[in-house]
Amino acid sequence: MTAVVIDGREIARDVRTRAAAGADEFRLAHGRVPGLATVLVGDDPASAVYVANKRRSAAAAGIADFHHHLDAQTPEPEVAAVLDALAADDRVSGILLQLPLPRHLDPARLLERIPPAKDVDGLTTLSQGLLAGGRPGLRPCTPSGVVELLDAAGVELAGARAVVVGRSVLVGRPMAQLLLQRDATVTIAHSRTRDLASVTSQADILVAAAGVPGIVTGQHVKAGAAVIDVGIHRTDSGLVGDVAFDDVVGSAGWITPVPGGVGPLTIAMLLTNTVSAAVAAAEGDPAHDGPGR
Amino acid sequence: MTAVVIDGREIARDVRTRAAAGADEFRLAHGRVPGLATVLVGDDPASAVYVANKRRSAAAAGIADFHHHLDAQTPEPEVAAVLDALAADDRVSGILLQLPLPRHLDPARLLERIPPAKDVDGLTTLSQGLLAGGRPGLRPCTPSGVVELLDAAGVELAGARAVVVGRSVLVGRPMAQLLLQRDATVTIAHSRTRDLASVTSQADILVAAAGVPGIVTGQHVKAGAAVIDVGIHRTDSGLVGDVAFDDVVGSAGWITPVPGGVGPLTIAMLLTNTVSAAVAAAEGDPAHDGPGR
Repeated sequence: MTAVVIDGREIARDVRTRAAAGADEFRLAHGRVPGLATVLVGDDPASAVYVANKRRSAAAAGIADFHHHLDAQTPEPEVAAVLDALAADDRVSGILLQLPLPRHLDPARLLERIPPAKDVDGLTTLSQGLLAGGRPGLRPCTPSGVVELLDAAGVELAGARAVVVGRSVLVGRPMAQLLLQRDATVTIAHSRTRDLASVTSQADILVAAAGVPGIVTGQHVKAGAAVIDVGIHRTDSGLVGDVAFDDVVGSAGWITPVPGGVGPLTIAMLLTNTVSAAVAAAEGDPAHDGPGR
Repeated sequence: MTAVVIDGREIARDVRTRAAAGADEFRLAHGRVPGLATVLVGDDPASAVYVANKRRSAAAAGIADFHHHLDAQTPEPEVAAVLDALAADDRVSGILLQLPLPRHLDPARLLERIPPAKDVDGLTTLSQGLLAGGRPGLRPCTPSGVVELLDAAGVELAGARAVVVGRSVLVGRPMAQLLLQRDATVTIAHSRTRDLASVTSQADILVAAAGVPGIVTGQHVKAGAAVIDVGIHRTDSGLVGDVAFDDVVGSAGWITPVPGGVGPLTIAMLLTNTVSAAVAAAEGDPAHDGPGR
């Protein structure tokens, strides 16, 4: 058996097309377009590239661009004031504060200024709480993208045994919640897990988000499983993931490549979230203002 | 092998004694005692008994009692106003809104009026988000009580395989988070799980919180496992849990009885939370005001 290689670029293209259609529908209904605000502080070159990609993709989907590039030395109250102004601006459907921030800024404290209804990265405490409670809200882009990939590939989630390797707040933990929401039986494994292979080899769906190059090998994977690789590492032999692709591709049922697997979905889901946020705000969705606000 | 039967009443007594010592220490340091506000709406007899027990236990631990009994017909804005007044009252360390509420009241909306620093039941969206993110905060009493039982019994959590049966917002989901925080490899099983016994029989620690009498039988349990029964059901043959006790006690390593297992810990942890909340508030703990407040 040779795994179906899931084409993340193609699936991301479809997601972006749907987001663009959603943005257009919104424009026809409301006479204005959804808006995405990106806030970049400082001059980290990788962050600059990421933000530029996000802005370009948003523009291509018909989403208005509200970009703020702040000097690396900007004091926290000034960054906070920018976020507060965006929170109050009806043209702005979603706010993205690009991480990491310069060291003098507290990312947790700044993120909390983003209202849950505009939290298109799904990273604030309220968004995390809505997800943990299984209530409507904006979900983090990378784990949402993984669900999108699984759905597009036709992998059955309900009743499946899913194992997530990694428990980061950005990926592992919300990933487990999203799979649980879809009725999978979910296990979270991590650096303290004993005999990782015995745990992962029970998975029908295996999401590798450990941040360790090649940690998932053939012996970790059940024949026919769907293996989703969230890792991305620059090595001398190019970009690699958390999955030893060549070792796994022969026995898995589905596998995502690195690059070209999960990565392209992250920005695509950001667009989806921005359009959803615009629609919810315009329709006065009670979930829009967050719980009890 | 016969399981050690974990004595929840004795462990709860120890927890209450520690909470009382903490309350006394607080009194010596601050010249006032921690305070617990209980809000009961209507005349549900079971709720009345629960609230009376909580108030009696709090008083016995040296915690001041702020009780509000509202008429079953109280309109939501009036209930909200009571919660807001308690939120603003410095004498009140913790606020407990007894559920279920009369049908005309929205429990989710009312719970959100409780600031996370006073959310001694750990049920608000912000408290759920803090737990999901692994950040400091007040945790729900029943799952915290389960961790307390496991610790008191000397069950090793780090690296253990833990299976939680049930994914309720009150117990199953926060239980999984707490076990993950303690470095267990955690699986959540539920009504859609296929072949439950094959999942649960891998558990070193098995928490039954499915709300189904006797769903966990001997074939679900690995020899030597710690089996914690969160269920409680009134039947013709008395109170029973989610675990078929007689069928499991011979092979498990540890087991909690029903009644007298998890139950007594719930109120004990409420006292612990109330004292912790008082200390955090008095010390101006930055976590006290919740994220970004």
